[in-house]
Amino acid sequence: MDIEKAGSRREEEEPIVQRPKLDKGKGKAHVFAPPMNYNRIMDKHKQEKMSPAGWKRGVAIFDFVLRLIAAITAMAAAAKMATTEETLPFFTQFLQFQADYTDLPTMSSFVIVNSIVGGYLTLSLPFSIVCILRPLAVPPRLFLILCDTVMMGLTLMAASASAAIVYLAHNGNSSSNWLPVCQQFGDFCQGTSGAVVASFIAATLLMFLVILSAFALKRTT
Amino acid sequence: MDIEKAGSRREEEEPIVQRPKLDKGKGKAHVFAPPMNYNRIMDKHKQEKMSPAGWKRGVAIFDFVLRLIAAITAMAAAAKMATTEETLPFFTQFLQFQADYTDLPTMSSFVIVNSIVGGYLTLSLPFSIVCILRPLAVPPRLFLILCDTVMMGLTLMAASASAAIVYLAHNGNSSSNWLPVCQQFGDFCQGTSGAVVASFIAATLLMFLVILSAFALKRTT
Repeated sequence: MDIEKAGSRREEEEPIVQRPKLDKGKGKAHVFAPPMNYNRIMDKHKQEKMSPAGWKRGVAIFDFVLRLIAAITAMAAAAKMATTEETLPFFTQFLQFQADYTDLPTMSSFVIVNSIVGGYLTLSLPFSIVCILRPLAVPPRLFLILCDTVMMGLTLMAASASAAIVYLAHNGNSSSNWLPVCQQFGDFCQGTSGAVVASFIAATLLMFLVILSAFALKRTT
Repeated sequence: MDIEKAGSRREEEEPIVQRPKLDKGKGKAHVFAPPMNYNRIMDKHKQEKMSPAGWKRGVAIFDFVLRLIAAITAMAAAAKMATTEETLPFFTQFLQFQADYTDLPTMSSFVIVNSIVGGYLTLSLPFSIVCILRPLAVPPRLFLILCDTVMMGLTLMAASASAAIVYLAHNGNSSSNWLPVCQQFGDFCQGTSGAVVASFIAATLLMFLVILSAFALKRTT
């Protein structure tokens, strides 16, 4: 009995839609066939609703993981650079040879920029969670891609400038008579090189985040 | 006479779709009402087809213009750096003081990177034109945002590394006993500074291109 009732209820809701076959003589519509593109639109509408949410949620979860790793890496780079210092064992009556990141302005800006980027990445984790919960929402994703692009630029600037200085400290430059200081401050150079490598890793992860967001934003036609 | 024919042709195509009002007693469908969400779907379908193509074409044209300017700027930066050299007026029996970009490895990589980026931006102009002609097409736009992101990173790296060296050349560093060479090679430093500024402009334009592509890619729900 229930099946019959359910059947009749479904029959009532199921819209029977057909194309109007006009009777040439009297012009009165008898039986209607569905409009040519009706099914295609309904399929596209349903198709749009189901499949993209699935893989976009996967992209959002991957985004969250990458963002977490990038945040840790950027902060580790800043911490490593800030704590790298070396005091040479020999000294004179007035002089003690000591090197730390404040001696080079590029390294100071490196610490500041990587701290800002690490902070930004940590604060952006909630937005990434919003993208996981609502994978089809555009605004949070657009906000993330804009900020990630800018932060990626900042990180790359700081990392490359410091890399140029560290390279110079390792090799010196005969044309401009700049001597390689790493021959005296080996540990200091080791520490700063490690920090620069970490910062490049964070910048690369940010680049992946931008590319991931581009895929997540794209229309699924 | 034409209006009447046009009217009948439109009547023939216009699908008359109605909800099936069942005759309680005999269960035969007489007149059909449109399904509840049919109009909403058709409107959304039409709305998706018309409005976004308009503003996305505008974005694509703006993208083309920015791309053209960025290409010129990047190539100008490379050319400026490559042609900057200075020979001091005094010289000794063995020595002539001469400075050019090959004296600093960072500057050499600057010339190479900016030439690659300038070449890329020129070759990507046809893709940008494709995006103007077919504003709703996703693949060319996705290709552009991926490459622009990588090229932006490369440009920023080259520009920042060179900026660190130029800054050092202008100011020197007392901690590491690096003397400011710009005091002797003023023109050389002027030329390299100009090239670095041009490269930062190209990098900033690339950043705008990435952000523009993100907007163009986003779904218009």
